Amino acid sequence: MTSRRPTLAVVGATGAVGAVLLQALTHHADVWGEIRLLASPRSAGRKLAVRGEECEVLALGEEALTGVDLALFLVPDAVAAQWAPIAAAKGAVVVDTSTAFRADPDVPLVVPEINPHAVRIRPRGIVASPGCSTLALIVAVGALHAEFGLTELVVTAQQAASAAGGAGTEALRRQLALVAGSELGTHPGDVRRAVGDHTGPFPGPLALNVLPWSGVPAADGWSSEELGIREETRRILDLPGLRVAATCVRVPVVTGHSASVHARFERPVTVARAHEILATSPGVVLYDDPATGDFPTPADVAGTDPTWVGRVRRSMDDERALEFFVCGDNLRKGAALNAVQIAERIAGEAARS
Amino acid sequence: MTSRRPTLAVVGATGAVGAVLLQALTHHADVWGEIRLLASPRSAGRKLAVRGEECEVLALGEEALTGVDLALFLVPDAVAAQWAPIAAAKGAVVVDTSTAFRADPDVPLVVPEINPHAVRIRPRGIVASPGCSTLALIVAVGALHAEFGLTELVVTAQQAASAAGGAGTEALRRQLALVAGSELGTHPGDVRRAVGDHTGPFPGPLALNVLPWSGVPAADGWSSEELGIREETRRILDLPGLRVAATCVRVPVVTGHSASVHARFERPVTVARAHEILATSPGVVLYDDPATGDFPTPADVAGTDPTWVGRVRRSMDDERALEFFVCGDNLRKGAALNAVQIAERIAGEAARS
Repeated sequence: MTSRRPTLAVVGATGAVGAVLLQALTHHADVWGEIRLLASPRSAGRKLAVRGEECEVLALGEEALTGVDLALFLVPDAVAAQWAPIAAAKGAVVVDTSTAFRADPDVPLVVPEINPHAVRIRPRGIVASPGCSTLALIVAVGALHAEFGLTELVVTAQQAASAAGGAGTEALRRQLALVAGSELGTHPGDVRRAVGDHTGPFPGPLALNVLPWSGVPAADGWSSEELGIREETRRILDLPGLRVAATCVRVPVVTGHSASVHARFERPVTVARAHEILATSPGVVLYDDPATGDFPTPADVAGTDPTWVGRVRRSMDDERALEFFVCGDNLRKGAALNAVQIAERIAGEAARS
Repeated sequence: MTSRRPTLAVVGATGAVGAVLLQALTHHADVWGEIRLLASPRSAGRKLAVRGEECEVLALGEEALTGVDLALFLVPDAVAAQWAPIAAAKGAVVVDTSTAFRADPDVPLVVPEINPHAVRIRPRGIVASPGCSTLALIVAVGALHAEFGLTELVVTAQQAASAAGGAGTEALRRQLALVAGSELGTHPGDVRRAVGDHTGPFPGPLALNVLPWSGVPAADGWSSEELGIREETRRILDLPGLRVAATCVRVPVVTGHSASVHARFERPVTVARAHEILATSPGVVLYDDPATGDFPTPADVAGTDPTWVGRVRRSMDDERALEFFVCGDNLRKGAALNAVQIAERIAGEAARS
């Protein structure tokens, strides 16, 4: 990068995460020179607002990537796998949000609150951002790990519809319209019949339901999403032997991932000390007084940046284990915001160097 | 009890669980003589169908309990605490579904698939049925325990609205009507504002949301529902030292509790052997082939009797730990059905003795 303000390309600007990312670029302190919006050829020519100006979307291609200092990729895995190395070869630092590079040992996997310095070592010119379910919990888990030494995680992640893209949100809204005002939900399969083939990207009806599956089949009955939480958490915390058992379920929530977390540590824990840590950790908001109704919920935290934490309890049977409940916006910290934070950190380090 | 067919009283016949229970009495092999329906004085005089006949509801009182052999209590804790001992003193065996006696060492806590013989030792003349969240998982967990020896449970229970009674179902349906067809669910608090004070028995909006709280505050940040799962599981399995960490969340599902379960055992486990056990255990249906879309969901199993199990995986990091997902109808096995099964067992033992 040069000392002029860097040129940023947003690749995949027209999707659901792209919309949130352009908002973030508009509201954050502006560190960028040119911002170039790229997408598939069929979206080229559309105009999107960023930093208060209309900006025409260009078709992703070699020419559009020329002169780019930093490229934020918000595209499907196959597109990222093809184009991120091309962008890097043309001199851009790539921040990729797909799964294509998350397991690559030559690509750092970065959460700026946890392992910011990892962005500096990027042999392929690519930095990866974790998946939304990992991001829902990692900032809180990482803060507690720094104090107590994490040894085991058992996680149930409740995923929102919008993490499956605009098609996910649309499917849930359509299904809700089909079941609202009805007496459905008490007879076997009545919701499934009412929803019919309007399941969208989901493997069954989501309205009035919980679907214990997301992602694609991975090894031994696990889903790619579940093993992703395990592998990404191990990488980000630099704990290759960490025990992780994750279950991902999809819930009828538009936006806002949540997770119930059982975390076991090397050292004894107290709720009071956990509260102190969470209350003072960047990117975390502690909201934990259930007796007065204070706990975070997905619908309440949608549209906000931080990771919200409540329901902190120590195990009744194990002085080294904590339970807690986390919530966050899967399109913000769960996707666009983490990528922007990585990009801003890289730009800041380049400016200082 | 005498050798004539026993007289059954259903106390609290007019509620949501009562309706399901009268259905079960109608469809099961008929072991009862008279069936007497009791409720609060304001419901007296209503007529309900059972065994194909209209039956007038009587007001709960000493007179109405006279001559009863077995009394099924489906009433709030305070009513059960007052009237169950009176019914027992008048000679009835009481099967109670409230929390009033679940922790009483002189009251057996019974799940017929797991500890049927416990019904015989009932010093107070009362037998308790567990809570719906315990019942959602205990049949599957108990079957695996018998083979592998359970040492630890980490559970996230997703509770349906109807477990909070008719008011819970009504609140969820009203909320869905308020949010369906809208663009709600992406801005902070927009669902909360739309739902307004139509939260019903819940501590916040349930539509498009997950509420990480049910029950009342218990010790150290835990809810009564969460500690109930721990204490009831320990009693039913006769494992007083079992480690249990449960989180209860309420989800926008009408009927059908589900739970993601992490179970650790004394002995190494395999998915193949776990499948064999679950496929052959009474009261359990194994439905587990996610690659072809086979996993149970709450909306699909609502209105059915068994505990459905899917998503069985062995921990990647621990040969003694299994993950799985269970679903069941919280009004059937989770409430009415378990109580009827207990009552039928008591009647059967009395008939044989």
